[in-house]
Amino acid sequence: MVTQRFRDQFGSHLVSGEPRVALPPTVEQISLHASRLGVPRELADFATAAKDDRLRHTYGKSFPDYVRAFAGDFSNAPDLVAYPRSEEEVERALAWADGARVAVMPFGGGSSVVSGVEPDVGEGFGGAVSLDMTALDQVLEVDDVSRAALVQAGVRVPHLEAQLKPTGFTLRHYPQSFEMATLGGMIATRSGGHFATLYTHIDDFVEGLRTVTPRGTMESFRLPGSGAGPSPDRLLIGSEGALGVITQAWMRLQSRPVFRAGTSVLFPAFRDAVEAVRVICQAGLYPANVRLLDSGEAANNGFGDGTQTVVVLAFENSDHPVDAWMDRALEIAGDYGGCFDFGAAKSGSGHLAGTAGAWRNAFIRMPYFKTLTVGLGLVSDTFETSITWERFHGFHDVIKRETEAAIVEATGRAGTVTCRFTHCYPDGPAPYFTFQGLGSHGELEAQWRHIKGRALDAVVAGGGTVTHHHAVGRDHMRWYERQRPGLFAEALQGAKARLDPNGILNPGVLLACRGATS
Amino acid sequence: MVTQRFRDQFGSHLVSGEPRVALPPTVEQISLHASRLGVPRELADFATAAKDDRLRHTYGKSFPDYVRAFAGDFSNAPDLVAYPRSEEEVERALAWADGARVAVMPFGGGSSVVSGVEPDVGEGFGGAVSLDMTALDQVLEVDDVSRAALVQAGVRVPHLEAQLKPTGFTLRHYPQSFEMATLGGMIATRSGGHFATLYTHIDDFVEGLRTVTPRGTMESFRLPGSGAGPSPDRLLIGSEGALGVITQAWMRLQSRPVFRAGTSVLFPAFRDAVEAVRVICQAGLYPANVRLLDSGEAANNGFGDGTQTVVVLAFENSDHPVDAWMDRALEIAGDYGGCFDFGAAKSGSGHLAGTAGAWRNAFIRMPYFKTLTVGLGLVSDTFETSITWERFHGFHDVIKRETEAAIVEATGRAGTVTCRFTHCYPDGPAPYFTFQGLGSHGELEAQWRHIKGRALDAVVAGGGTVTHHHAVGRDHMRWYERQRPGLFAEALQGAKARLDPNGILNPGVLLACRGATS
Repeated sequence: MVTQRFRDQFGSHLVSGEPRVALPPTVEQISLHASRLGVPRELADFATAAKDDRLRHTYGKSFPDYVRAFAGDFSNAPDLVAYPRSEEEVERALAWADGARVAVMPFGGGSSVVSGVEPDVGEGFGGAVSLDMTALDQVLEVDDVSRAALVQAGVRVPHLEAQLKPTGFTLRHYPQSFEMATLGGMIATRSGGHFATLYTHIDDFVEGLRTVTPRGTMESFRLPGSGAGPSPDRLLIGSEGALGVITQAWMRLQSRPVFRAGTSVLFPAFRDAVEAVRVICQAGLYPANVRLLDSGEAANNGFGDGTQTVVVLAFENSDHPVDAWMDRALEIAGDYGGCFDFGAAKSGSGHLAGTAGAWRNAFIRMPYFKTLTVGLGLVSDTFETSITWERFHGFHDVIKRETEAAIVEATGRAGTVTCRFTHCYPDGPAPYFTFQGLGSHGELEAQWRHIKGRALDAVVAGGGTVTHHHAVGRDHMRWYERQRPGLFAEALQGAKARLDPNGILNPGVLLACRGATS
Repeated sequence: MVTQRFRDQFGSHLVSGEPRVALPPTVEQISLHASRLGVPRELADFATAAKDDRLRHTYGKSFPDYVRAFAGDFSNAPDLVAYPRSEEEVERALAWADGARVAVMPFGGGSSVVSGVEPDVGEGFGGAVSLDMTALDQVLEVDDVSRAALVQAGVRVPHLEAQLKPTGFTLRHYPQSFEMATLGGMIATRSGGHFATLYTHIDDFVEGLRTVTPRGTMESFRLPGSGAGPSPDRLLIGSEGALGVITQAWMRLQSRPVFRAGTSVLFPAFRDAVEAVRVICQAGLYPANVRLLDSGEAANNGFGDGTQTVVVLAFENSDHPVDAWMDRALEIAGDYGGCFDFGAAKSGSGHLAGTAGAWRNAFIRMPYFKTLTVGLGLVSDTFETSITWERFHGFHDVIKRETEAAIVEATGRAGTVTCRFTHCYPDGPAPYFTFQGLGSHGELEAQWRHIKGRALDAVVAGGGTVTHHHAVGRDHMRWYERQRPGLFAEALQGAKARLDPNGILNPGVLLACRGATS
């Protein structure tokens, strides 16, 4: 039955014979090294060294995380897990850790796919504490005139939305990990959300931030816009826990959509679909969704016949019907050979029906298949980037070819590489690649590293960003350092030296790990 | 005749009797201290110590700049002016200045209204060189697929647009100073441009930057979007020459607008006009222009009867007619008691006709009246901020009251304070205040400092930004330091220490002037 489900989901071409199914270990089966730290007096009320807590804060949700968890390897487990219930407890935890030269890993939803939360901090520290922020989960204030809310950073998206619901507003930011992801984690990692154009990253929703550092707490003015020097918020957005711990934020909200139009458009030719998406994105229409799925991606997600490129297109608005917008977008799609059901696009709930609905459901289910895939010995992962339109086709073809070749090198057999656009800008798309190959138990992590490494070599060599919205973490550092201007790295190092002089905050992320200074 | 023009332009209520008219000095009349520096061998090809060049690079275009220029006070003139013709010459100038501990003031259009280019650098330097970037004025490359161009930083907006014209694209970013302003200057100061919503600041048009620092040159990847750590570009955007000299940028372009609709809406009540603008800005319509002018501002600019609030409203697009957008915006305006000519709004060139056209013409002429106003002894200036909607009315009333009181204190008689919105966001407007009072020759600068100081005290105390798009410069430092999180100032100091270890770049701007370290 597992094999059948596997074949249905990932394609029978990957399976020759019956795959060997591995099972994850139970907590009791895992042997964990003793904590190097006792719970200090200052943290006694909200920290623990219990095995279960330490295991649950060792990994994020990446492919190698699952592989190592399956193998019972928890050698990087934190020594302590702290659950601060107030900003004062965050400050207390940082003060203690700074004095004791203990590395601090801010931990939100734990949904990092780039080793952003793993206490892999080297030898220079007296230990590592995972700072779980999820107890700080309240919406503190809602401003229904300006449409904004003051929100604690540890709240998960569903709980945030539940608290906002009575007000009629929504953050309307749903990364694929939204069921787990916390607000602070999303801000710290420049999360990519619901909107495929315009407000793609969470960056644009931040009105003001409050952040605790080992040197103290800072807060930016809550502002709709400013031109007063480089933005303080923009230094912290994307800082991945290396500069401070975000404790709360004023966030811009949306009114709940009332008017919707959505449909999917089928294109016989991939190039024509790309061209249609480019022109739609340059037309000033700002669709909520304009996701392109190549033929393989469409078929893998349960629709299309495996030959056509699909563009999922949706508009939504709280104020007015969106027919004029959708009509023009479909006109453009038609100009490039796209086929669609014009009637379906008019339906108020069209965005949940048909192909578009199938896509949405598949999107939400996607991250939860890793237990199955790892158990089956499948090497499977995604990586995402962005590139300007005029370089896209060459870039796409090289990456696909390099990744396919890397799968063969790593596993000895052909796999699949598919592409979709998660977000689109007037000057280029954010292509998102999925690769799958049948690997071998015991070698999965090495096979994954080979494939992903060769793929990212091609991404960075081709001028794409090392990550559009998965963040840098530890897994992307090698490519991030190639892409980042060297003097910007020094500027960042200079900033960190002032905020975190002992280098205790998420060591190894964004800046090379130097161990605590003393 | 001058008096009549003065009365027409600024209101006869300010003038009692015949004002005394001062005239600006000629170059010959100005006595200038000798340059502390000879032109060094390394800069011989492109630098000068000539009086005329030094005079033209002493000031920007602020009110006190004109006052001091009228008084013949050029005590802060640079010792040298360099006109690099290549990035290599920029690098050479910085290397020489760094070694000689000479302060470097990057100089673009010289249109700073906040003392951003004045060599007021204290005693710690061997001299000051103004680095005039205007010889670097070429569009190097246009990508017509992704709609972007690689542009040298010293190009002025009209020359940039002239070079782009054959391609059919435009930067479409027109600060009030656009005839003088350079691209690099606009990026370094987070210029506010043509679009009143959505793409308000130049920040959003920057795809990638190349910047020379005393430590070397850095370049960011040209990308449509990225989530790889804090944005390198966002640290340099708004850095006002204190972190590096921007030499070129990849800029996002717009297609030239083909479809336009524009009109103005009259409201009997200020509060209703504000409410209409808020709702329009929260409706997802993204008008190119939605500028509110209070009754005094409208009358001063040559339209309205002095009792009505005007909202100038315009949509434009290169791809499709904008009637659906304008219709809905006018429907909202009507809901709040706005009166408009529905027919005029349909006209393809409506944005240039009637009230909206009068506004546009007045806007463009505005900065060039300073010679006249200073000569007449008028204390006249503008300041701009942003604030969330729910605080706007209280904020506006306090600022208006404080500024009016400050004019009386400073000049002994009542003046005027008016307000318009230059840009609007879903969560708040960017109010722009203009004040005018009749001062006394010889005391104009002190009178101006008193009025502007009390106004900015109120702005910052009320939670507004010290500047929405005029930048910080030297004039706003006192308030910027109150508003900026203290730890962010330290982070910025840490970044500057790595890029500009001797502190030669625009000392005193963004960070307190400490003199060159040696």
